[in-house]
Amino acid sequence: MLEFNELLYKENIQKVWATHTEVEKIADTLSSQKFENIFFIAIGGSQATIAGIQEMLKTRTTIPTYVESASEVVINSHKLLTKKSLVITISKSGDTKEIICAVEYLKKREIKTVAIVCNPSSPLAKLTDHVIVNPMLKGAEAMYLILLFLTLRLLHNNKEFDQYEKFIIQTKILPDNFTKAKTKFDPIALDFTNKYKDTSYQLWIGSGNCWYEVYSFAMCILEEMQWMVTKSVTSSEFFHGTLEIVEQNTCVILVKGLDKTRILDTRVEQFVPKISNNFTVIDLEDYIFDGIDRELYNLLAPALMSCICTERLASYLSRERNHSLDLRRYYRQLDY
Amino acid sequence: MLEFNELLYKENIQKVWATHTEVEKIADTLSSQKFENIFFIAIGGSQATIAGIQEMLKTRTTIPTYVESASEVVINSHKLLTKKSLVITISKSGDTKEIICAVEYLKKREIKTVAIVCNPSSPLAKLTDHVIVNPMLKGAEAMYLILLFLTLRLLHNNKEFDQYEKFIIQTKILPDNFTKAKTKFDPIALDFTNKYKDTSYQLWIGSGNCWYEVYSFAMCILEEMQWMVTKSVTSSEFFHGTLEIVEQNTCVILVKGLDKTRILDTRVEQFVPKISNNFTVIDLEDYIFDGIDRELYNLLAPALMSCICTERLASYLSRERNHSLDLRRYYRQLDY
Repeated sequence: MLEFNELLYKENIQKVWATHTEVEKIADTLSSQKFENIFFIAIGGSQATIAGIQEMLKTRTTIPTYVESASEVVINSHKLLTKKSLVITISKSGDTKEIICAVEYLKKREIKTVAIVCNPSSPLAKLTDHVIVNPMLKGAEAMYLILLFLTLRLLHNNKEFDQYEKFIIQTKILPDNFTKAKTKFDPIALDFTNKYKDTSYQLWIGSGNCWYEVYSFAMCILEEMQWMVTKSVTSSEFFHGTLEIVEQNTCVILVKGLDKTRILDTRVEQFVPKISNNFTVIDLEDYIFDGIDRELYNLLAPALMSCICTERLASYLSRERNHSLDLRRYYRQLDY
Repeated sequence: MLEFNELLYKENIQKVWATHTEVEKIADTLSSQKFENIFFIAIGGSQATIAGIQEMLKTRTTIPTYVESASEVVINSHKLLTKKSLVITISKSGDTKEIICAVEYLKKREIKTVAIVCNPSSPLAKLTDHVIVNPMLKGAEAMYLILLFLTLRLLHNNKEFDQYEKFIIQTKILPDNFTKAKTKFDPIALDFTNKYKDTSYQLWIGSGNCWYEVYSFAMCILEEMQWMVTKSVTSSEFFHGTLEIVEQNTCVILVKGLDKTRILDTRVEQFVPKISNNFTVIDLEDYIFDGIDRELYNLLAPALMSCICTERLASYLSRERNHSLDLRRYYRQLDY
């Protein structure tokens, strides 16, 4: 596989999995200290990741959960964000200015924060009350997994998720399962790239807990890293406006997820080919393997999408378009 | 002004304003019956409207408020949506299939619903526990206004909004103020249309309580009614991906709002001209008039945007592009 070191990847996912013991300690401390609600606060791709987690939690817990933008929350504060709240934030770099600013704001108001960062000596790691170090720099699946350990443990402590132990045991095989998923998707990623690398516009569609990963792929990989014009829309909202711009050659990509909103994806799958002959479906169902209960796989859907789409597609697009994923013309080049 | 009957418009807004007495009775009944949280449930443009209202409420009330998609909530139910919830929904037609389905679902679960509809004999009006009739078929400002009467009255009853009476008194001049705003924006709408009517792609940006109206304008007017390709992104998220696709000739439109997130709009306003020379700012500040406190105008910002952008721009785009706003090639033409 292009730019893929299987041994290193498996080792990294294994290290991510191993964080669960440390994460549990933090979660148990937080549960014992009590909190009234959970605010997920981040920005950009990180906000998309935590929003995917909140999407799963809201159907499973009576603890109120909210997602807020790090740049908005400091100027337009949510009335229920108080000293009795728990804030969970993530940032790979640990120095994104909006997140630093938000955590400083929270600290002043004595609001408890726990952050997942890749760099333990980053400003964010120093600021928050609790730090969890994500040992894997690339691949949002690592962030998803650690966030699942943290939040599902909180639910387990709240007697709302009795499959926590099973989830830990079963996810031990993720290094294998994710590698198998990547391997299976790899030739599809190359075909996809050859087909779409020169498109002037891509419409990406998804729903449920995968929607935010779809949004993030379009914005953070295609727009930010490949300077390709996109729009993303939910499978539900697609039928309330965006469908009208679809023509015979419009490039439309649907990611079919694993949760109950999959039936909304199916409507899109049946509708778009009536109009466009430039339509591709990426069905996550094709990339799940034995060893993990289907019900628990649902929770892993955005991580799985990150593992295949985000990483495999990004690698091939970068090579075939001769456009490094690290190239920026404005972000962190010009001030804003 | 093109396709504008001033007398009729003022009369309609006056009728909308007059609904407040009936709305108050319903709000007072709901308050006396108690509820634990408010769910705003709708779809498409209607969902955008109620999300703009929720955006304002969340900074003003300790009542938990949530926005859910009508098509998702019935299959992926929120754990806090219970018999103790109050559901507020809106639909112009009153027969949108996803909303009917959602209200039937809520009814079975004995969850209280109040709906704002334009057609009192529509299926939705017959299904809900409380109906408020919006006397104005065109213009989302009517829906915004009725939603503000309803929700601000609930906050007033909860001792969280002591300016309710003032809001009612001051908004009595809205027929005049909104007409002045339309009149002032009218030549700008024509210029805008001449400049942008043939663009292959428009990027719309906004924030805070106006963000959802920006999202809705791009999706429901430009995409659905004019078949024009767009993307919309928040002023905050713009800097985390989408900025990289902006080039010298990229068509970018920023709507500067009136609430505190306006400073995020200002960052966009300062940044984009460094790159694109095809950039337009619509500043809502230029369309507010005497007689209403600035603090209360903040609450009216999305209604104001609807009044100028959505209606004036849509009229000119339709005429100059010779493309009726009622034309659909797929929606309600093909099944989904």
